[in-house]
Amino acid sequence: MMALLVRDCDVLRIEDGKTQVDFHRNILIKDNRIESVLPADETNFDFQGEVIEASGLLAIPGLINTHAHVPMVLFRGLAEDVPIEAWFNDYIWPLESNLVAEDVYWGAMLGIAEMIEGGITCFADHYFYMDEVAKAVDESGIRANLAWGFFEHEGVQKLDTVCDFVRRWQGGANGRITTWLGPHAPYTCGPEFLKLCAARAKELNVGIHIHVSETAQQVELSLKQYQKTPVALLADSGVLEVPCIFGHCLYPQPEDVELLRSSQVGVAHAPKTYLKLAMGNVNLEMFLQAGIPVGLATDGVVSSNTLDILEQMRLMALAQKDLSRDSTQFPLGKVLGIAFAGSARVLRMDKELGEILPGRLADIVLVRQDGAHCFPRYDPAATLVYSNRASDVVTVICDGRVLMRDHRLLTIDKALVKKQVAQRLERLSRRSPGVRIATYPT
Amino acid sequence: MMALLVRDCDVLRIEDGKTQVDFHRNILIKDNRIESVLPADETNFDFQGEVIEASGLLAIPGLINTHAHVPMVLFRGLAEDVPIEAWFNDYIWPLESNLVAEDVYWGAMLGIAEMIEGGITCFADHYFYMDEVAKAVDESGIRANLAWGFFEHEGVQKLDTVCDFVRRWQGGANGRITTWLGPHAPYTCGPEFLKLCAARAKELNVGIHIHVSETAQQVELSLKQYQKTPVALLADSGVLEVPCIFGHCLYPQPEDVELLRSSQVGVAHAPKTYLKLAMGNVNLEMFLQAGIPVGLATDGVVSSNTLDILEQMRLMALAQKDLSRDSTQFPLGKVLGIAFAGSARVLRMDKELGEILPGRLADIVLVRQDGAHCFPRYDPAATLVYSNRASDVVTVICDGRVLMRDHRLLTIDKALVKKQVAQRLERLSRRSPGVRIATYPT
Repeated sequence: MMALLVRDCDVLRIEDGKTQVDFHRNILIKDNRIESVLPADETNFDFQGEVIEASGLLAIPGLINTHAHVPMVLFRGLAEDVPIEAWFNDYIWPLESNLVAEDVYWGAMLGIAEMIEGGITCFADHYFYMDEVAKAVDESGIRANLAWGFFEHEGVQKLDTVCDFVRRWQGGANGRITTWLGPHAPYTCGPEFLKLCAARAKELNVGIHIHVSETAQQVELSLKQYQKTPVALLADSGVLEVPCIFGHCLYPQPEDVELLRSSQVGVAHAPKTYLKLAMGNVNLEMFLQAGIPVGLATDGVVSSNTLDILEQMRLMALAQKDLSRDSTQFPLGKVLGIAFAGSARVLRMDKELGEILPGRLADIVLVRQDGAHCFPRYDPAATLVYSNRASDVVTVICDGRVLMRDHRLLTIDKALVKKQVAQRLERLSRRSPGVRIATYPT
Repeated sequence: MMALLVRDCDVLRIEDGKTQVDFHRNILIKDNRIESVLPADETNFDFQGEVIEASGLLAIPGLINTHAHVPMVLFRGLAEDVPIEAWFNDYIWPLESNLVAEDVYWGAMLGIAEMIEGGITCFADHYFYMDEVAKAVDESGIRANLAWGFFEHEGVQKLDTVCDFVRRWQGGANGRITTWLGPHAPYTCGPEFLKLCAARAKELNVGIHIHVSETAQQVELSLKQYQKTPVALLADSGVLEVPCIFGHCLYPQPEDVELLRSSQVGVAHAPKTYLKLAMGNVNLEMFLQAGIPVGLATDGVVSSNTLDILEQMRLMALAQKDLSRDSTQFPLGKVLGIAFAGSARVLRMDKELGEILPGRLADIVLVRQDGAHCFPRYDPAATLVYSNRASDVVTVICDGRVLMRDHRLLTIDKALVKKQVAQRLERLSRRSPGVRIATYPT
């Protein structure tokens, strides 16, 4: 049995929507689970194992990224200041036609390095060549929910190969990998095809991760074409009968809310993308009051530029206060409740993740709060939400294993990853006229 | 003569609103000015002086913070999730009644440490006990425009002492300090008192730094009380006849725009405060199209939590794209133009600061762009605006002197500053019933 002791940290908790810090705690980890969280001066035991000295560091649950396209880091910064239609049709989808499997492996490794450095221990990914991402997850020690993204135009044969991926990697990497199905979106997958996806998901006993109602125009097109909102279309296709992550869902219609609630769809919220692509935003209070799970996400870096959940958390809080024109909205406890327990709920892992408690999976992040930009620290929760940066993450533990210690990655050779990525850039950044993996309807 | 060579950096420039990077440049600094910027392979001279190896680092003009209350760092995190009226009347103004001069000195040192670490080389401050801030500026080597904030209720005697401060420190710290007058706002200083301020500013040949039209309600109150907008009231009081920095100016009325343009008022824009306090926002395009100078600001950390211009720059870009619902608005060149040249114009220093050019003051910041969160770097400007964090600032030069080298502050003993601040927190964080330095009208 592996044992790990995090000594004398301060543990952040959310209780009844309020933030609470338990100062000077020892966290004992056995194998991949938290064994105990006790006052540091009360735990005087004979410990045999690895010790992490954490005096003055804030311990938080490992951050969860509920919707990403991690290997897109390969294209970071290639589509700035463009409208959303051009973003898809003239940039991303042409660029993605350059990808081969090995590119995706190195992209995944680079993105996972960035995520671990920023305190992310679990991510839900939606991309292509997902065996490569699974391999990167396995090797790097991070946790993931993986969905191979596909379009209807790729046919049923593609769905078959994607189902093979689901079976191949379900429970992989010592249980750190979960696999779901990832039909791209209702605007690239029609109702009959979605029915087929739902049937397959039920057979496989897995969930579906999909993009839904990202723009008002998508909702309008759906109403025009199918006389249904995208959410209603998904309900009628049986998709909502399995666990779901809906990426974005910025334009839920009033009739959608009950559908989302009753099937406990998880909404993945990535505000940096919404602001940058000027997509508008959703008042999250609508979801929260209906009891719909909401979590934080980074989306892909071609829209958000970083895989940084602390940044997305801050943007969510700022944008929601702005949207409601009420600075008392989205107080610290609510913001952190979404980041921790909310994101775990979106992944249907709220019994395992999102809190530092005995019995939970040992995904724990230690954060410095003594930098000049964090000082004084009257309130560690305020410091975390409004002052801390990803670079303040010191040490990252996932599934009981230390992935980063004192800012040093232990499972990824970052220099090698960067070298491998650099070699591919010239080929990957070319856009051939007319070549793209799909077409965004306008 | 002091000489400093920054060897083999990449220099970011804005030309006709477009970003441009000159790779592999040597920047030669003599005393406090830039002597030359030449291709690294063309400068083969016999150099006697200090050399900074900067291969792979991006050189940008020192960042400028056009409106701050730096010593407020002492209260960081003490007023979260509150409405703006309570923010003033129940938190900030009661808390500020605890301040003595020495507190302000240590607060200024802490805030300056944070700013230098984040690449800020010049700030416009509006606070109290400004001799202490001036002392901190002098010792730390940063550049500043300092205004002692005051209210009408403190009387003409106060104005006299503030004018003495202006004379005492004008051109101080080897010319790095500029002093202006700082009447607090039109809602705390009436028209007659503002006339007196304008007259004094003219006598002293200095500008005025003031809070203007921060909320819609302030404009309504002004219209009700004086039948004039705050901007018109300032114009009629003669304030616009001297150089001005207007903090915030979120609610300019149509008739204000020509007044702002013709007097070239500088607008200091601090979006993190606006979002967090749910104050609404202003479409900056209105100012820019009229030719009104716009610069970036941090405001005080009790609203913005950090003194981080990179963060404010990113928030400005994101919030302006969102506000216009057009992702092509505020492209990289415009965003960086505001951060560099725009901010310099707000301070009326655009002939001295805001560009890395021969003859300019040598305020230069070197930024890493090779972190996992910045990689790959197809476009250094996109990386700077959307990926870089304050912690990526490596080396900071102000007035030809190195203030931070390889992340290490050279002029500030950060441990001592934190110790001094820590000793004061218990006293400073108390709020005595009914005691406050001023009252916010509601």
